[in-house]
Amino acid sequence: VRFRDAVTVADVERIARRRIPRVIYDTLAGGAGDEVSLRANRAAFERIIFRPRALGHVALPDLTTAVLGDQVSMPVLLAPTGAGRVVSGGAELAVARAARRAGTIYMQSSVTGFALEDVARAGSGGPLWFQLYLPAEREGLADLIARVAEAGYTALAITVDTPVFGNRDRDRRNRILGSTIRPRFLLQGATHPRWAVEFVRGNVLPRTSAGGAQRMSPRQTAATIMASARPVGWDDVRAVRDLWQGPLLIKGVMRPDECAGLVELGVDGIVVSNHGGRQLDGVAATVDVLPSVVDAVDGRAEVFVDGGFRRGTDVVKALALGARAVFVGRPYLYGLAAAGQSGVEVVLEMFRAEVAQTMALVGAARVSDIDRSLVTTSAGR
Amino acid sequence: VRFRDAVTVADVERIARRRIPRVIYDTLAGGAGDEVSLRANRAAFERIIFRPRALGHVALPDLTTAVLGDQVSMPVLLAPTGAGRVVSGGAELAVARAARRAGTIYMQSSVTGFALEDVARAGSGGPLWFQLYLPAEREGLADLIARVAEAGYTALAITVDTPVFGNRDRDRRNRILGSTIRPRFLLQGATHPRWAVEFVRGNVLPRTSAGGAQRMSPRQTAATIMASARPVGWDDVRAVRDLWQGPLLIKGVMRPDECAGLVELGVDGIVVSNHGGRQLDGVAATVDVLPSVVDAVDGRAEVFVDGGFRRGTDVVKALALGARAVFVGRPYLYGLAAAGQSGVEVVLEMFRAEVAQTMALVGAARVSDIDRSLVTTSAGR
Amino acid sequence: VRFRDAVTVADVERIARRRIPRVIYDTLAGGAGDEVSLRANRAAFERIIFRPRALGHVALPDLTTAVLGDQVSMPVLLAPTGAGRVVSGGAELAVARAARRAGTIYMQSSVTGFALEDVARAGSGGPLWFQLYLPAEREGLADLIARVAEAGYTALAITVDTPVFGNRDRDRRNRILGSTIRPRFLLQGATHPRWAVEFVRGNVLPRTSAGGAQRMSPRQTAATIMASARPVGWDDVRAVRDLWQGPLLIKGVMRPDECAGLVELGVDGIVVSNHGGRQLDGVAATVDVLPSVVDAVDGRAEVFVDGGFRRGTDVVKALALGARAVFVGRPYLYGLAAAGQSGVEVVLEMFRAEVAQTMALVGAARVSDIDRSLVTTSAGR
Amino acid sequence: VRFRDAVTVADVERIARRRIPRVIYDTLAGGAGDEVSLRANRAAFERIIFRPRALGHVALPDLTTAVLGDQVSMPVLLAPTGAGRVVSGGAELAVARAARRAGTIYMQSSVTGFALEDVARAGSGGPLWFQLYLPAEREGLADLIARVAEAGYTALAITVDTPVFGNRDRDRRNRILGSTIRPRFLLQGATHPRWAVEFVRGNVLPRTSAGGAQRMSPRQTAATIMASARPVGWDDVRAVRDLWQGPLLIKGVMRPDECAGLVELGVDGIVVSNHGGRQLDGVAATVDVLPSVVDAVDGRAEVFVDGGFRRGTDVVKALALGARAVFVGRPYLYGLAAAGQSGVEVVLEMFRAEVAQTMALVGAARVSDIDRSLVTTSAGR
Repeated sequence: VRFRDAVTVADVERIARRRIPRVIYDTLAGGAGDEVSLRANRAAFERIIFRPRALGHVALPDLTTAVLGDQVSMPVLLAPTGAGRVVSGGAELAVARAARRAGTIYMQSSVTGFALEDVARAGSGGPLWFQLYLPAEREGLADLIARVAEAGYTALAITVDTPVFGNRDRDRRNRILGSTIRPRFLLQGATHPRWAVEFVRGNVLPRTSAGGAQRMSPRQTAATIMASARPVGWDDVRAVRDLWQGPLLIKGVMRPDECAGLVELGVDGIVVSNHGGRQLDGVAATVDVLPSVVDAVDGRAEVFVDGGFRRGTDVVKALALGARAVFVGRPYLYGLAAAGQSGVEVVLEMFRAEVAQTMALVGAARVSDIDRSLVTTSAGR
Repeated sequence: VRFRDAVTVADVERIARRRIPRVIYDTLAGGAGDEVSLRANRAAFERIIFRPRALGHVALPDLTTAVLGDQVSMPVLLAPTGAGRVVSGGAELAVARAARRAGTIYMQSSVTGFALEDVARAGSGGPLWFQLYLPAEREGLADLIARVAEAGYTALAITVDTPVFGNRDRDRRNRILGSTIRPRFLLQGATHPRWAVEFVRGNVLPRTSAGGAQRMSPRQTAATIMASARPVGWDDVRAVRDLWQGPLLIKGVMRPDECAGLVELGVDGIVVSNHGGRQLDGVAATVDVLPSVVDAVDGRAEVFVDGGFRRGTDVVKALALGARAVFVGRPYLYGLAAAGQSGVEVVLEMFRAEVAQTMALVGAARVSDIDRSLVTTSAGR
Repeated sequence: VRFRDAVTVADVERIARRRIPRVIYDTLAGGAGDEVSLRANRAAFERIIFRPRALGHVALPDLTTAVLGDQVSMPVLLAPTGAGRVVSGGAELAVARAARRAGTIYMQSSVTGFALEDVARAGSGGPLWFQLYLPAEREGLADLIARVAEAGYTALAITVDTPVFGNRDRDRRNRILGSTIRPRFLLQGATHPRWAVEFVRGNVLPRTSAGGAQRMSPRQTAATIMASARPVGWDDVRAVRDLWQGPLLIKGVMRPDECAGLVELGVDGIVVSNHGGRQLDGVAATVDVLPSVVDAVDGRAEVFVDGGFRRGTDVVKALALGARAVFVGRPYLYGLAAAGQSGVEVVLEMFRAEVAQTMALVGAARVSDIDRSLVTTSAGR
Repeated sequence: VRFRDAVTVADVERIARRRIPRVIYDTLAGGAGDEVSLRANRAAFERIIFRPRALGHVALPDLTTAVLGDQVSMPVLLAPTGAGRVVSGGAELAVARAARRAGTIYMQSSVTGFALEDVARAGSGGPLWFQLYLPAEREGLADLIARVAEAGYTALAITVDTPVFGNRDRDRRNRILGSTIRPRFLLQGATHPRWAVEFVRGNVLPRTSAGGAQRMSPRQTAATIMASARPVGWDDVRAVRDLWQGPLLIKGVMRPDECAGLVELGVDGIVVSNHGGRQLDGVAATVDVLPSVVDAVDGRAEVFVDGGFRRGTDVVKALALGARAVFVGRPYLYGLAAAGQSGVEVVLEMFRAEVAQTMALVGAARVSDIDRSLVTTSAGR
């Protein structure tokens, strides 16, 4: 399949797979452990069944919506991935530009090969969101947050599902992203734009050099895992909330019983996420957890979700279950790998076309018409 | 397998697959998106389990029944497909003749390569039903309906599950039935018998011409989808009801909560249909939805169903769940592709033989003996 | 695998498959339609889970039991199949002798290549059971039953699940056991020992002759099916009950609500059977229906079951669900095909060894210790 | 994959599979009958879904715990297997040393090629547990138990799920571990260190000698099975309890209703086990039974579990369901086969790393933090 013949996100993935080295593809596509949760994220969509309204919807679908006060052209946002540099030179800058052209939001990762100010400039002209791994040295937190605000980012998300590095068999087999990579190192990318180059040189290339074998041992140990530990506590959330004026999101929540506490701390958005099945294998599919989180939040914050979205039907199902919007990650990375910035744009237009089509077919004229009655999880009987 | 050795509808499909180009086969056999609903239609039958009566039925099975007042020789009707022309020259005329010889009803599609009067003549000597896509210009509606009545059609069905064109990956990959085809264009077939030829010339052939690449882009966009939008509203149903004296069916209902309104508008028949899994992927299997529609209608209209019927056992299961009769579409198209009119006849006799056999084996002497006690959806314990 | 290396019934089947023509193997192994029920019979066993008693059973297992007053060495009986002649010259005589040596019961089929008196002689020295297809001419019934009694058969079973011939795709594809075979013809075997030869000559061989194509058409029609119709009614059961003094079984019951009537008519045994998945596709697995039949009968008759038994664990599961004993059919035919009479004996000893082993492992010293607490159908939580 | 590249236990298994003869691999990896329970043990883990705590766990995970009063460095113990000698010369001695280095417990099997005193010496410097098959001659019991105590073993486990030898198709096909091997013979290993050599010579080698066919028949019979019978009764448990001063475990319990009686007899630990799926096919997965056993025991004894553990996530799931610790068997045998003692050590460190990682990711700082709220068995909704 040539890129111009790609009709689905899956087609784009197949093209990307051919264009990048297998070890790089693996690090994008892979999940934790036996990849049960990776597959579960996709499989869960099949169990959610539409109950389309055949009659009564005479208007054309309008996909615009608001997320934490920001207007977007469709309920599909771009998740932070930090992996852009390994697939394409332009990387985050290209992704930010594509998001801007599509009229939606890119949440920039704090793990990146570009200065956060550069990405902000690339995405300027619309809302900007920033994702934060808490730095190991908390004294730097206030400065970092001030810098994020200064650059023009309007919302901030704290990722809480990476207390330690996940169990990435594929990467360990491929001797890439070894066990010594830690979030606090990754964070360096926010202020050290040359990091990505070092990262690639230091992690990908050495596997071809003879002497690196010992250092590159594929085995993780309890010691290396604990050395990477950087959990986020309730106090950390409180500290960020005090420092950040704009909307605050918590990304990586999978238990409804943690939502009340977050809402009380003043969190504005919850992102139901299992890190794309890349951190803990055996965790539920995100759309399976979504409804219970929506119920627990009970309208006091906006709920978002990521994990496995490839189709417009997936998006509409998540919205029907109560999500305000969804985040996509791998799909735009595949677009980036396949065709650079225009590849990202094509992927976003695929989502837009399919969401519009699905809304028309289920009988929803506006995003707010997508209610829970449109789906069921039984066989529909 | 040669056609004369075919013993099942699946055999006939295999033969048809060989006889027609792959892109044509795909357009018949394919479904929307990832084809989850296409497969679901078939898979649902396996979860419906017979509870045969071993004793007490001593008479031979009688397959005759009445549908909306019309007598048929068996509870298997021919669904409108409008695809006849692409597989065989005789097309709808052959299908109409085969239905007449089999003593059952062909519901003629408003998307066709023949004038509706010609199809009516081919099928004359018994009941005739007509399927209507509402024309974009509503002022032509009264004339069209008058013409349908004039031609001798006894019942009319409005299709409501095509507010926009479905997400047909296979066709887009094959560059056939591109995204610019819209129901309002398709409707032209009713009054422009040469349309099918144009359709094939304009959509199938150009893919081999060098210059057509841009126009034939396999990608759909939100704009092309919305341009195809032609939803049916409650007012449309009311308008048709006022114009049409005979029995009126609504085809494409998948929610029980829409049935009460339809019955109150004077609708006589409901066709539970997901358009053969070709419109919205992710919708339920039709036989899974059937019982709840039957319950909602509660005898105030007759309920029909289509989607995935290949076996006499499938038919009897649907009847046990409350369907008055079932519609088959792809099976007769495969028969048409395999052996023209006699292929359609063979397929209908396969259904008749298997329905008779199944009725005898479950202990039902008449169609009306096929009650809900004959099936269960649990493991039968 | 050589026969002497066979350690399971599945091994014996593999050997048999090689030793007989594929069309003959198909007619033994095949089922109706898409073979959903054929597979269901086997698959159902996997959902029945043992809850073994680890402690307290110190005696060696005793497999003897009584069935309708007859003592057998184990709760595994031989089902009537009538197919012996097509796989081995000795056929029913060999099976009857093997059953006698194993100390269990062979239920002789009324469809056979041997006179019922000859089979009775071969199996003499122990209990003899006879399976009856009701003859089309009822006036011959009394004579036939008198003859069965005279020959020494101690119990009689009426098969009620063959009102018409089943939908045997494999056989129709193989042009064997064509659609003109009817139970009333098959019955001729009881009094016409040369029938099997005629049967083979008349059905298997002609497919190689040029002129037989029309007569051998693989297609069944409603007419040929109805011509084969021979349903059994309540009056028929009453008539046989009046003519037969010994224990009477009804074979082919799949609905608990038919049991009360049968018990009131004086039926002594119910055989839960779907004819090995060979008559109606889509019917439940027999072991899934078994418990509800046991509950409905409530001790007023003995309940038996057949369908898919290949392992000693299968047998013990059925006994735990309330069966008095189980019937096996295909397993002994495979043994017969693989190694004649000694093949049947080996298969029976495989069952005996595995039943003994299973009884010891679940903690049952006697057949009567096998109670419902030993199994569950949930995941055991 | 070379051993130094192995990153998971599954990798180690693949390496072991290549290093040892297929018949030996089969005897380690195989299960009873159709291996339904063998697969069920693994498959059950996929249905147990994590509900990770994202916030509030700021300490590094501490894996140490206490089992029946003994301190271990992690909640992963080594099950008795008795198969060490067939894969590696060092065998049990190497396993005992590896367990000691890892700071955990090896439960030595009474079926072994080494004197129990030798194994005790190899594992000295920490807690030692011993697994007991009751000897056929009960008069030797007191002496044996005294000897076990003398050697320094601190806890004793009685295996109760081997009243007869299991149905091992693979081994019978491979003509190894034939049907005449009985627990009472196997027990000889405890006092006859040369037994294993004889065992291999007497069972594996003869299959290549011409005359051994009769003796080596792969078929089991009811007689050979009953001859191997050696069930354990309540009186046996009482007898051992009277003779043994230290903690007493019962291994092989799969029914909650047997726990109360055991607790009343003074049993300190219950091991939920189906013998790795090697005894009775069709029994539940052990982790499916675990919660009901934990509920039945209600804190009056410690509950352990084995069967299918390959991942740190598996271990944490079992602990969440109430297990005190888990036993692993095949994993360390694969390590032993792949790389001797250091192979066992690598496998144990793989478990340690993954358990630490999983604890961090679910938000458990200590083993005692792993509570039932961390898992669910529904889809998490």
